[in-house]
Amino acid sequence: MSLKQQLVRDSDDADSDNENGSSRLEYSVRMPADDEEQERQENGPTFTIRQRKKKGQSPYESLDYDVCENVLWQQEHRKIVPRFTVRKDFSRWLISMQIGIWTALVACAINIVIDEVSRLKYGFLKRAVDENVLGGDLAIPYLWWVLLNVVPVLIGATLVAYVEPVAAGSGIPQVKCYLNGVKVPRIVRIKTLAVKAVGVVTSVVGGLAGGKEGPMIHSGAVIAAGISQGKSTTLKKDMKVFQYFRDDHEKRDFVVGGAAAGVAAAFGAPIGGILFSLEEAASFWNQSLIWRTFFASIISSFTLNVVLSAYHGLSSFRYRGLFNLGEFKPLPFEYYELPIFMLMGVLGGVSGAIWNSVNTRINLFRARFVKYRWAKVMEAAFVAIIGATAACAMAYSLNDCRPLGNDPTETPVQLFCEDNEYNAAAALWFQTPEATVKALFHDPPGSHTILTLAVFVLIYYPLSCITYGLSVSLGIFIPTLLVGAAWGRLFASFVVLAFPASSVFMNPGKYALIGAAAQLGGIVRMTLSLSVILLETTGNIAFVLPIIITLMSAKWSGDYFNEGIYDTQIRTSKVPMLPWHVEPRLENELAENIMNAPVVCVRKLEKVNYIIDILKNTTHNGFPVIESDENDTREDGKLIGLILRSQLVVILKRSMYVETERHWRDLVTIEQFRKEYPRYPTIDDLRISEDKTMKNYTVDMSTFMNPSPYSVNPDTSVPRLFQLFRALGLRHLVVVTQENRVRGIITRKDFLKDD
Amino acid sequence: MSLKQQLVRDSDDADSDNENGSSRLEYSVRMPADDEEQERQENGPTFTIRQRKKKGQSPYESLDYDVCENVLWQQEHRKIVPRFTVRKDFSRWLISMQIGIWTALVACAINIVIDEVSRLKYGFLKRAVDENVLGGDLAIPYLWWVLLNVVPVLIGATLVAYVEPVAAGSGIPQVKCYLNGVKVPRIVRIKTLAVKAVGVVTSVVGGLAGGKEGPMIHSGAVIAAGISQGKSTTLKKDMKVFQYFRDDHEKRDFVVGGAAAGVAAAFGAPIGGILFSLEEAASFWNQSLIWRTFFASIISSFTLNVVLSAYHGLSSFRYRGLFNLGEFKPLPFEYYELPIFMLMGVLGGVSGAIWNSVNTRINLFRARFVKYRWAKVMEAAFVAIIGATAACAMAYSLNDCRPLGNDPTETPVQLFCEDNEYNAAAALWFQTPEATVKALFHDPPGSHTILTLAVFVLIYYPLSCITYGLSVSLGIFIPTLLVGAAWGRLFASFVVLAFPASSVFMNPGKYALIGAAAQLGGIVRMTLSLSVILLETTGNIAFVLPIIITLMSAKWSGDYFNEGIYDTQIRTSKVPMLPWHVEPRLENELAENIMNAPVVCVRKLEKVNYIIDILKNTTHNGFPVIESDENDTREDGKLIGLILRSQLVVILKRSMYVETERHWRDLVTIEQFRKEYPRYPTIDDLRISEDKTMKNYTVDMSTFMNPSPYSVNPDTSVPRLFQLFRALGLRHLVVVTQENRVRGIITRKDFLKDD
Repeated sequence: MSLKQQLVRDSDDADSDNENGSSRLEYSVRMPADDEEQERQENGPTFTIRQRKKKGQSPYESLDYDVCENVLWQQEHRKIVPRFTVRKDFSRWLISMQIGIWTALVACAINIVIDEVSRLKYGFLKRAVDENVLGGDLAIPYLWWVLLNVVPVLIGATLVAYVEPVAAGSGIPQVKCYLNGVKVPRIVRIKTLAVKAVGVVTSVVGGLAGGKEGPMIHSGAVIAAGISQGKSTTLKKDMKVFQYFRDDHEKRDFVVGGAAAGVAAAFGAPIGGILFSLEEAASFWNQSLIWRTFFASIISSFTLNVVLSAYHGLSSFRYRGLFNLGEFKPLPFEYYELPIFMLMGVLGGVSGAIWNSVNTRINLFRARFVKYRWAKVMEAAFVAIIGATAACAMAYSLNDCRPLGNDPTETPVQLFCEDNEYNAAAALWFQTPEATVKALFHDPPGSHTILTLAVFVLIYYPLSCITYGLSVSLGIFIPTLLVGAAWGRLFASFVVLAFPASSVFMNPGKYALIGAAAQLGGIVRMTLSLSVILLETTGNIAFVLPIIITLMSAKWSGDYFNEGIYDTQIRTSKVPMLPWHVEPRLENELAENIMNAPVVCVRKLEKVNYIIDILKNTTHNGFPVIESDENDTREDGKLIGLILRSQLVVILKRSMYVETERHWRDLVTIEQFRKEYPRYPTIDDLRISEDKTMKNYTVDMSTFMNPSPYSVNPDTSVPRLFQLFRALGLRHLVVVTQENRVRGIITRKDFLKDD
Repeated sequence: MSLKQQLVRDSDDADSDNENGSSRLEYSVRMPADDEEQERQENGPTFTIRQRKKKGQSPYESLDYDVCENVLWQQEHRKIVPRFTVRKDFSRWLISMQIGIWTALVACAINIVIDEVSRLKYGFLKRAVDENVLGGDLAIPYLWWVLLNVVPVLIGATLVAYVEPVAAGSGIPQVKCYLNGVKVPRIVRIKTLAVKAVGVVTSVVGGLAGGKEGPMIHSGAVIAAGISQGKSTTLKKDMKVFQYFRDDHEKRDFVVGGAAAGVAAAFGAPIGGILFSLEEAASFWNQSLIWRTFFASIISSFTLNVVLSAYHGLSSFRYRGLFNLGEFKPLPFEYYELPIFMLMGVLGGVSGAIWNSVNTRINLFRARFVKYRWAKVMEAAFVAIIGATAACAMAYSLNDCRPLGNDPTETPVQLFCEDNEYNAAAALWFQTPEATVKALFHDPPGSHTILTLAVFVLIYYPLSCITYGLSVSLGIFIPTLLVGAAWGRLFASFVVLAFPASSVFMNPGKYALIGAAAQLGGIVRMTLSLSVILLETTGNIAFVLPIIITLMSAKWSGDYFNEGIYDTQIRTSKVPMLPWHVEPRLENELAENIMNAPVVCVRKLEKVNYIIDILKNTTHNGFPVIESDENDTREDGKLIGLILRSQLVVILKRSMYVETERHWRDLVTIEQFRKEYPRYPTIDDLRISEDKTMKNYTVDMSTFMNPSPYSVNPDTSVPRLFQLFRALGLRHLVVVTQENRVRGIITRKDFLKDD
């Protein structure tokens, strides 16, 4: 078999084998919390990092943010003429523009479908109530409601459970991980986007306590990854464009823009979008990246504005974002209100911390006992039924009648009220959660009784808590805002009760906003970007101070108890995300105490035999390359480079051996490595083992390795290493002696907790 | 003389000698552009970096952002108990709060003084005009005006020229340099703050075309540096608090907060403040720093709000910032206006580029021909007279009468108008530039004729251009906004003339805002932070899209011609500021091609003789420490550490020799080094030379050196090095062979242009 034939055969094989590779990953992604439980039972709480690594179960890998400037890269780079640099830069801007446009279009599509279907649904339910309230049986609209909740939820949950489990939830934690430098498998694939988009529509239409904002941010990230690569492995389509952006470094930079564009589309908050990306990925920023990201946000915001303005038949730009809280009238605040806002912030922090804690427990329980796919689907349907039941019970039993006319709801339900009145309790439920948030912010004082609001909070708080974590696509921004707005309004009512004099200045909408900010701050804990997002959605910058004070109080009081929900999710999934600061227990440690040793090294000229051996029998992703004779041990070589597992696999697959050099030397380019990105074959996908002679061939690493890996001395302090990792987005850091001999290797997992 | 006595003597000496040290620096700071000219004449345009370095003339040093974790540091660090860590963290927040409060208070003081004095001044001038317009001689108010302009400007210019030249201008370029990691001498001293504060008051009161915003940002930076250090060398006062924050790393982090607080106070833009700091110093950020910075901004914003609301007798928080453009009414914009805004952005970019180019030429001319201090003072007075003359000429000759009543100006001047009318041309001049900007934004349509606006632009544009660069403290935000607002309004008038139908939607205030954004974007070119600052000052977030589109067009078209004014200033001052990207010519270079070699190294055990020699005869600030016997040459040693010039000087000053170890070993702590920060004595300040025997003593570097300096191989690519420098804020990077032998050293200057 000629070498060329073999190349062809190998790549065909890889494609088919890949599917197995990904389904293996699927298992471990689906139940990270479960794995943890198992591990804990097996190893007890004291198992070490080394042990976990040997098991090789972690499905998460670091991104290779560090550019590998090997000989091939240099060859390509030297050929670059200034014109190409300009074209590359222009392409970057072009891609950013496309990211903005497509993110906005997807967001618009999701939004319009949800709007239309919800209108039909609640219109139908209103008619069912109206027809049956006098004489008829109120069970009929209830059953209709259950049906209209369960059917879409079943569809969405089935899609998520059977087609793409990684599309569950809001997607923000996964995007955070990606921005931090961790590859969560299949998080930026087209299939994930499809499931996410359909899933979020079904969840919101199905009346689950969730929003579409988180999934939209995730969508933006997927779109960015897709467009920037100019190919889709899932769709088996290669557009042959933007090939030079096919590495982790470039891709991640575009995903930053995609996430920002997603925030811009979801909230109409282009500046909030940039700050969101910044808050999550602050360490690798540079100015041109900031500007491209900003550009993507703006384009996204603009496209959405144009499309939705056209859809709603508006002549000027009214639709700034999907989630528009509506313009607040200027809300001046008084000095003495600031302590009240601070108190509300603390309340929100405590309430958020409780929510997070309960939700985490529920999800651990879920991971343990709801393992089967059908069970997950059933669970989602069950929660949908609970929602409909609670809503009906509340609407039927509370007789909170208000005169019609102020038009605070799209589908006012009369129920047992007089003519020209509507039931305010039902109004809270007969629309999308988003519309309810707006109503709570803008309804005139006295639109709801204390009882209605209190019952609503008592129902919706636990409901949102059990909903988040179901096998469906939805976010927690809207339900959180809803709970917060409701208790904020409730709070205002109590203040008026306690101090009747305060009713003069009391604007319950203002308190609803503060309550929403407090609750959101207490649950997600992002201060800076959240402030800006809320400011941009309210459209009133005069309110900056109260919102920030509230968010900071909420964050501080919440942080006293636990982490934000996203960070908790990430931690329980065991994703090796680098925190903002090195852990206190590592602060006085040195590199030699946390490094992994002995290190598996390869020689500059290394036998294929040995390479296959280490690829099969270790799970390391990077191997230091050492200067060492064939007779020396590999223990004491001098560091001359670093080679990645993915590179070694491609070298073997393409049979780039010293002995066969005349066949490939003139043909080899960095393209052959880029072509496999991002789904490199694994060593098991190759069939080299058949050929006995080939095993004695030699690979010359010097062409392929990264010739200048970062290295440190064994007595470098851990905070210093950590700084290097964060600032440069490293994956591997080699520890060498003063003679430059390899002593150990450090990866991001070594900075994380052992348990 | 005992060692203890010597210690005492030495520190006394250092204090007095220091003054010489700083006055030496003063010369080179005062006329950087002049130095450049001289150098060019001496060396021709081809002189290399090496030559310039040997001359040792550059007054700019890098900050030591990298923490030196030497043995002393470790000793201190190990003693740290958790309680101390908490206290330290708490101190950081406390300092941030104080930074916010004091920055706001200084800003308030400046603002109130300017407000009050300006009111007196323009009230007096109005009465002078009113009394003399009928029958009297109009030369009298003109002369009064000249006098009232010249006197304050003389005071301010004298202060700046004779007391603290570094306080000239806006201070933003210097703060940018500091955030980038370059120490501009005396930029964060209390004396600078005092001169700046008094100087900006006199400049604005003196009617120069300048604003107080830039100086306020600079003030924030100085206040931050002062408070965080807990001592002032100038005032010879040591509060003995916050000693652990006495290094470049901590100080710079606080200065980031101070700059943000300054922006927050100057514009009422806390989020803009954070983004300003971010845009200038993006590479070293981490989340806790973001939050402390945000906290300082918020506190600053809040304090200012409280103080100014109280001062103006308002019960609720109306004063969001000093520079408040006034609430814009909701300004919806139409689709077809966007291209107009884009065109205005391009116009602003071109006009800004011309302004920058002319201003740079004027300042080069100034540096060459206006060298004496008295000449600088005279020049400033001369410009003040031109301003008064132009204003009078315009007010007297244009008879643009408007009916009184809309109250668009504080001091309406009747001049030759009818009773119940005022002269609109005079109104533009009879108030602070800031008030005029507000008037242009908010005056109803038709408040000014085309002629008035055109003449105003033609006067103010060149006036602001010759003003910026005078030896006075003032910023360019306000004059730029003023010019932009005027031509924006003018533009609106032309649009109405060209398309009479457009007068329906035409709101000239909106066009004034866009013009102001375009002009500002064209001159300073900061996109992101400027967008947010403008949004926060207008208080209307619905206008985000037009402002951003305008700013981006302005930036792109301006960048086609030249750099922003701040970057131009920095470049002509030859400050070694690291750009955002490595220069194209260096993109394919390797470390060995840009490194400095041979390197002056010191042995681990080094003779005092040699140390004194290298300190006196080189200008290097860092020396690699090598493992080497006394008999070996220093050429081929293995790198084991890095020691700074400042550390060596302190070691010599304190006589910390191996031979005298029993005297100091138990006493030595990192405190002794910190105590000298930031004004380390120079080698010439020490009097070691008298003592012959001491010269044969030995210094053991291992206690003092940084044991893990960053090092790279000679074949590392320059972009990779650059990334290291930017991301870690490095000052020195040692180039070593594979055997860890020192081959060269790289500093930030090596990345910059040779010319």
